Amino acid sequence: MRLSAWLSTTLFALAACRPAATPPPDTSAAARAAIDAANANWPRLTSTAHADSIADFYAADAVLMPPNMPTVHGRDSIRAFFAVLNTLPGTTLTLRTESVWGNGPAATELGHWTFTWPASATRPPGVPPVDSGKYIVRWVQQDGQWLMAQDIWNSDLALPPPPAPAPARR
Amino acid sequence: MRLSAWLSTTLFALAACRPAATPPPDTSAAARAAIDAANANWPRLTSTAHADSIADFYAADAVLMPPNMPTVHGRDSIRAFFAVLNTLPGTTLTLRTESVWGNGPAATELGHWTFTWPASATRPPGVPPVDSGKYIVRWVQQDGQWLMAQDIWNSDLALPPPPAPAPARR
Repeated sequence: MRLSAWLSTTLFALAACRPAATPPPDTSAAARAAIDAANANWPRLTSTAHADSIADFYAADAVLMPPNMPTVHGRDSIRAFFAVLNTLPGTTLTLRTESVWGNGPAATELGHWTFTWPASATRPPGVPPVDSGKYIVRWVQQDGQWLMAQDIWNSDLALPPPPAPAPARR
Repeated sequence: MRLSAWLSTTLFALAACRPAATPPPDTSAAARAAIDAANANWPRLTSTAHADSIADFYAADAVLMPPNMPTVHGRDSIRAFFAVLNTLPGTTLTLRTESVWGNGPAATELGHWTFTWPASATRPPGVPPVDSGKYIVRWVQQDGQWLMAQDIWNSDLALPPPPAPAPARR
């Protein structure tokens, strides 16, 4: 085989698949399957007072960004955050994935959450029986497992109006 | 050139760069530069009553997910959302990017926002002089321009306690 023939053939083959022209491997389907499998556990874990186990779906250095609280750093602190739900028997947190955009070992998920109290429960003052809203989670694949790395959410419900100022004395 | 030589050379070259082994092009640096340039406009646009122009940084079909409100769909509705800030003279919204993870034509940004009222302003009841919190934005590159496609945030500030129930008459 002549060098020129080898060169031209090889360069042609390489040019046809050079990295700049290669789209990132689309992991959306694989990521979506792993995300669906993980998220399907949330209603059972929350309603049976095992919400602390939800921390196992997060990366060790994950950050949780709850509304009206500072950011929670790391799986141990995330476990403590969710453990509070274990003290609210029968409350159920359900996730519904709407979109997953995967690229290689990372994926971004957009979804909707619903938090419900059992009819028999005595709720804290001002807390509605059902709350719901939207979230974005960034997932990463580590050692073959998809884990939540960054998680932020908020509620769709309007805040109650602030207390009216006390009437002026006269 | 013999067919077998051509085949083995070409297959070797292709195998060396097959898509499964090619990491996604890391666009983090380019995305970060575009995101920094876009975000740098927010304080000026908000404090000079041009907050509606912020909509130009969003994709036409973007979704905005504000706290305690339903999702806002599309650039026109996003423009109306930000236009409300034009009625609050001197209020300033500042963004501080903390991380950008880019893959090909998409990037996910995590950051911190601060919203301040001028000292001279009369704020609505219950609204603090400074509010701040965290956000995640998913950016997409369209026709060479980086645009916000999904945007969610919440506040770090604790909610005020609900109004105390009226004391029972006796």
